[in-house]
Amino acid sequence: MTIDALDLDIDVARIRRLLDGRWADVRDQARETLRDPVFVPREGLTLDEQRDHIFEQALAISKSDGPKLLFPKEYGGLDEVGGAISGFETQAFGDLSLLVKGGVQWGLFGGTVRNLGTKRHHDRYLEDILSLALPGCFAMTETGHGSDVQSLRTTATYDPATDEFVISTPDDEARKDYIGNAARHGRMAAVFAQLITNDESHGVHAFLVPIRDETGEIQPGVRIEDDGIKAGLNGVDNGRISFDGVRIPRDNLLDRFGTVAADGTYSSSIESENKRFFTMLGALVQGRISISGAAVSAAKKALLIAVRYGDRRRQFKAPDSETEIAVLDYLAHQRVLLPALAKTYALSFAQAELVGELHEVQTECTDDDAARRKLETFAAALKAVSTWHATKTIQDCREACGGAGYLAENQVAGLKADTDVFTTFEGDNTVLLQLVAKTLLTNFQAEFGELDSIGTVRFVAEHVAEVVIERTGARALFQRIVDAIPGTDEDTNLTDRDYQLSLIAFREKHTLEGVARRLKKGFEADEDPFVVFNHAQDHLLLAARAHADARIMEAFAAAVERMEDGDTKVLMSRLADLHALATIEAERAWFLEHNRLTPTRSKAITTAVNDLCHALRPFASDLVEAFGIPDELITAPIARK
Amino acid sequence: MTIDALDLDIDVARIRRLLDGRWADVRDQARETLRDPVFVPREGLTLDEQRDHIFEQALAISKSDGPKLLFPKEYGGLDEVGGAISGFETQAFGDLSLLVKGGVQWGLFGGTVRNLGTKRHHDRYLEDILSLALPGCFAMTETGHGSDVQSLRTTATYDPATDEFVISTPDDEARKDYIGNAARHGRMAAVFAQLITNDESHGVHAFLVPIRDETGEIQPGVRIEDDGIKAGLNGVDNGRISFDGVRIPRDNLLDRFGTVAADGTYSSSIESENKRFFTMLGALVQGRISISGAAVSAAKKALLIAVRYGDRRRQFKAPDSETEIAVLDYLAHQRVLLPALAKTYALSFAQAELVGELHEVQTECTDDDAARRKLETFAAALKAVSTWHATKTIQDCREACGGAGYLAENQVAGLKADTDVFTTFEGDNTVLLQLVAKTLLTNFQAEFGELDSIGTVRFVAEHVAEVVIERTGARALFQRIVDAIPGTDEDTNLTDRDYQLSLIAFREKHTLEGVARRLKKGFEADEDPFVVFNHAQDHLLLAARAHADARIMEAFAAAVERMEDGDTKVLMSRLADLHALATIEAERAWFLEHNRLTPTRSKAITTAVNDLCHALRPFASDLVEAFGIPDELITAPIARK
Repeated sequence: MTIDALDLDIDVARIRRLLDGRWADVRDQARETLRDPVFVPREGLTLDEQRDHIFEQALAISKSDGPKLLFPKEYGGLDEVGGAISGFETQAFGDLSLLVKGGVQWGLFGGTVRNLGTKRHHDRYLEDILSLALPGCFAMTETGHGSDVQSLRTTATYDPATDEFVISTPDDEARKDYIGNAARHGRMAAVFAQLITNDESHGVHAFLVPIRDETGEIQPGVRIEDDGIKAGLNGVDNGRISFDGVRIPRDNLLDRFGTVAADGTYSSSIESENKRFFTMLGALVQGRISISGAAVSAAKKALLIAVRYGDRRRQFKAPDSETEIAVLDYLAHQRVLLPALAKTYALSFAQAELVGELHEVQTECTDDDAARRKLETFAAALKAVSTWHATKTIQDCREACGGAGYLAENQVAGLKADTDVFTTFEGDNTVLLQLVAKTLLTNFQAEFGELDSIGTVRFVAEHVAEVVIERTGARALFQRIVDAIPGTDEDTNLTDRDYQLSLIAFREKHTLEGVARRLKKGFEADEDPFVVFNHAQDHLLLAARAHADARIMEAFAAAVERMEDGDTKVLMSRLADLHALATIEAERAWFLEHNRLTPTRSKAITTAVNDLCHALRPFASDLVEAFGIPDELITAPIARK
Repeated sequence: MTIDALDLDIDVARIRRLLDGRWADVRDQARETLRDPVFVPREGLTLDEQRDHIFEQALAISKSDGPKLLFPKEYGGLDEVGGAISGFETQAFGDLSLLVKGGVQWGLFGGTVRNLGTKRHHDRYLEDILSLALPGCFAMTETGHGSDVQSLRTTATYDPATDEFVISTPDDEARKDYIGNAARHGRMAAVFAQLITNDESHGVHAFLVPIRDETGEIQPGVRIEDDGIKAGLNGVDNGRISFDGVRIPRDNLLDRFGTVAADGTYSSSIESENKRFFTMLGALVQGRISISGAAVSAAKKALLIAVRYGDRRRQFKAPDSETEIAVLDYLAHQRVLLPALAKTYALSFAQAELVGELHEVQTECTDDDAARRKLETFAAALKAVSTWHATKTIQDCREACGGAGYLAENQVAGLKADTDVFTTFEGDNTVLLQLVAKTLLTNFQAEFGELDSIGTVRFVAEHVAEVVIERTGARALFQRIVDAIPGTDEDTNLTDRDYQLSLIAFREKHTLEGVARRLKKGFEADEDPFVVFNHAQDHLLLAARAHADARIMEAFAAAVERMEDGDTKVLMSRLADLHALATIEAERAWFLEHNRLTPTRSKAITTAVNDLCHALRPFASDLVEAFGIPDELITAPIARK
C-alpha cells in the first residue's frame, strides 16, 4: 500500500472553527484578552517580583469574562462551565504561571467553595473570590500524602464548648505542601482535614481557614514556609502551611455533603463515608479537565514553534544540488513532529467531548451517578494521556529546534519547565490510570462505594463469574465495531477507518477482559490480595491506556465524520489515519502477540506511517496555524512570522 | 519461567570498584575535590553572579589534577586522557554548569589548540589555558549551521601583503552561536572558518582570534551578543560572536593538518579536503566521549535520589493492613526505575570500554585509520544513546518523585534542565546515529574520504555487489554469536546470556543488511539519491540504534564475565539479564516481525522483566549507593541520608 501525495486546497479557518468548537466565541475573547500588552512577559525579575507580577496580571484577568464563566450568576458570574474551560485552554497559549495562579484561585479555591460549600459560603465569599479581593489556597496535598487523599492527617476537631473547629497539623509530614498562593498572596485556605466530632472521625472534609489578615500578616497558629524555586511555574507562590490548633467557626466547614450541629452531631446526605469522599472529590473534577486541556494547548504552542522552525531551518545539501534541505523534509524529523501533531488534534477532539460531557453533567445538575462516573473516568484517562503527551511532545520539539530550542527566548524551554508538573499534579497519572482501570472493571456502582482500590478489584473478581464489560463512554456509533473481532485480513486497506477503530477497540476489550480473568484467578487461589493486585499492575495500566487510546481515536473519527465533504475533510481524514496508524504502530507488539497483525501487515503499517508523514508534510504549516495562537504570544525569534 | 527471589550477600564496595575501573584513583580524587565547601551551590544569584561564581569555582578546579590530565607534561600537565575523562565523569556528579564551563575551556578550547595546533601554539598558550589565565571559546557552531560543520560560512582570508588572516562574518546567520565563555569571560576564541588563500577555498580550519583584551574590553571588529537565559546551565555564559574583518597574524592558524606559507601557498599532509576535514573533527572526539560519560553520571545522580525516595515514600495501605506500602514496592514504580538502573550500569561499562579505546588510540599516537574510525563510530553511537537515556531517566525520576521532584531543592529539576541540551550539542543525536550507520555501511575507508553522507551510501550500493558487513568494534568474544541466527526455541532459558546476545546481535546484523539492500535497490533503479536516502532514513537510524544496543549489552556481559564468582557477581548477572530482556522487550515488535520471537515467547519476556524487577528491588539501594556519589553533593531533602 502506498499513500498518494495530496493535492488539496485547504481552508485553515475551517479547521480552526472545527477545533474551536462550541465555545468558539469564548476562545476568541480569550485571544483578544491575551493580546493586551499587560500580558507581555517581563524578564529578569526576582522570584518575589515574578510572583507579584503574575498577581497583577491575574487582577487584569479577573476583570475579563474568563473567571466569571465559573461563577454563579447571583455572584457576578456567567455560569458556563464548558465555556470556562474552553477559555482556560485558550489562555494556556499565554503564560502558564498566570494560568495556574488563576486556576488555583478561581478553579480550585473558588470551585471548592462553590461545589463543597452551601449558600452561606457562597453569599459570603464568591464575589470576593471572583474579584481576587480574597486570594485563596486549595490546601489538600500534604508532604506525606498526595495521591492518597483519604489518608490525609491534618485534623479538624469540633469543640462544642466554643462552637469551633480546631485545625491541627500533627507533624511535618502532615504539612499542607506545594500549595499555590500560600507563600505570598493567599488570605484564606480551603483546608482538607479529617473531621472529628464527639471523638469520632468522619473522613476528609474541607474547611475555610484564614491564613493571613488583610495586611498580609500571617495569622496566629499558622506557619507558612516557602517551597522556593521550582522547575517552572515560578510565578506561582507555592508553599507549605501548618496549623497549630487554629480555631475557626463551625460555619467554616464547607458542608454541602456533611455537616455538624452545634452539639457536635454529624450528619450527611450520603451515608457511606467512602462514597461521600468520592462524591466530594468528584465535585472537583473540573480541575483535572482543565489541566488536560492546558496540556494540549501547550503541546500546540511547542508544535507551532517547531514546525515553523523546521520549515525554515535548512541543513545539509542534497547530492548534486546547491540547495540545502529544510529539516522538516527529512523523514526522521517528520516522524518526530507529525504523529505528535496528529495526536494533538486527536486529543483536542477528545477534550472537546470531555468538556461537553462536564457541561451537560453540571448544568443538568443530574444526580445520575453513572454519568458522573463516566465523566470522572474519561477525565482521569484523558488527563493522564494529555499531560504525558505534552511532556513528550515539548521535549521532542526542544530537540527538533536544536541548540536554539535550549534558549529561553525561543519559548520551548519555558513550556517544558512549566508543564512538567502536569503529569503529577491534579492526580498522579499512574494513580489516575489505575482509577480508570478500576472503574472499567466494576460497573457495579451500588456496591462500589464501600470498597477500597484493591477491595473493588477483588470484589469484581470474586463475585462476577463472567465479567461483563460495557465500554464506559463508548458511543453507539462505534459499538458495532467493538463487537467485531478484527481479522488479520491482508487485503483490508490500512486507511479503512472501521478497520483502524476495530483494532484499537479490540485491544481495549481484550486487555480489560484479560486483567479481570487474571485477578479472578489470583483471588480465587486465595493469594495475598496486594500481591495479586501488584503482579497485575502493569496489565491494569495497559488496560487503562488502551481504553484512553480508543476513546481518543473515536473522538477524532467522529469529528472527521461531522465535517462537510471537501478538501479540508480529506486532509483531516488523512491526519486521523496518521494518528490511528501511529497508535497501532506504537502498540504493534501487542497486536502481533495477540495475532491481530501478521508480521507483513505490521511492517506495512510502518510504511504507511512513513507515507502519511510524507503526504501530510506540505500541510504541517496549515495544521499548526489552525490552532489560532495569537502572534503576540509567539515571541520566539526562531518562529516569528 | 519464573525468576526466583535472590538471597544474596552483597559487597557494595566491590560493585563500586567494578564501576570505577581503571582510573579509580582519579575518580576518588575528583570526589575529594568536590567535597570542598567552595563547590557548594549558591542560591538566588543573578545571571552574571552565577556566571562569575562558576568562573571562580573553575579557578579552583584548575588547581586540581583534573584538567592537568588533558595537557602534555611539558606544559604542566599529566597527559592521561583516559583519566581525564574518568575524572570528568565523576565531576559530573557535581554542578553541571561548572562541568561544562571547564569542558569548554580545557576540553574544547584547550583540546583544539593541542590537537589542531603545532608546537608554537602549544608553547605560547597551553600553560595559560590550563591555569585559566587565558579563558577561551570553541567557536564552531553558527546560527545557521550546527550539525553541518562543512557548510560554515565564516571566512578567514589570507592577505599576503600584511601576513594576516582576515576573519569575517558575512551575515547574522553566520554568527558563531551558543558559544560558551563568549558572553562574559572569554579572551580568545578558536574560530572555525573557511580558509581562503589566493582566491581558493581549502575548507574549514581553526584560527585563534583574540576577542577581549586583558581588561575584558571587547576587541575592535568583534561583536558579542549574549544568548541570555537558557533552559539550564545558566552558570555558563553562552553568546554569539561576529567578526567584521578582524585581522590576526598568519601564525594564528592552527596548522597541524594544513598550513599557509607567507606567499599564500596552501599545503597539507592530507590531500583530500574531505578527509582532512574529518581528520580535524576526529581529533576532537574526546568532547563527545566526555558528554556521553557526563550523561551517564547525571542519570546515576537522579536514580540515587529517586531510589532513596522510593524506598522511603509510602502511599496507600495494603488491604487488611495498617502499613502503607513503599512506592518502590509497586510493580509500576519498579518498571520505571529498575530497567533504567540496569541500562545505566550497561552504559557505564560501555563508556569504560570507549574511554579505554580512546586512551589507547591517543597514547599510541597510532595512524591506524581503522582504529580511529571505530572509535569515532562507537563514540557517536554511545553519545546518542547515553544522552537520550539521561533525558528519559531524569524525566522518569522527576515523575517518580511526584511534586517533590518539581522543587529545585530536590535537585532532579536542575539535572533535567542542565542535561537537556546534551542530546543536541557535541553533535545532534540523530545526525550522529546517521554517521554511525554510514560508517557501518562502508568499511571502505580509502574511498570514503571523498564522499559526502549520501554519496558514501550510494558508493556502497553501486560498487559493492555483496555488501560485506563487518561489525565495527565487535569483540571476538561475541563473534560466534553474531554468526549464529537465534532460533525461536521456546525451551532456551531467557536468562541464557548467549541467547540474549544472539538476539540483540541478530537485530544489528539484519537491520544493517536490510538497509544496505534497500539503498542498493533504490540507487540501481536510478532514483533521486536524496529520495532514496530519505525514504530509508528511519531504517538507517534503526540500524545505528541496533548497533549501539549490541555494543552496550556486550560490554555489560563482558564486565560480568570478568568478575570473580560470588553473590555480587550473581547480582550483576541478574542486572545484566534485566538490561538484556528489557532491551529485547522494548524491541519485541521487531523480533516478532522477523520471526525471532513467537507471541508466547514475547509475552514470557515481559513476565521475566517483571520477575527480575521484583527480584532486584531489594538491591536497588545497594545498586545506587555503589555509584559512589559523595553525600555532600546530595542536598535534596527527599534523599538525604
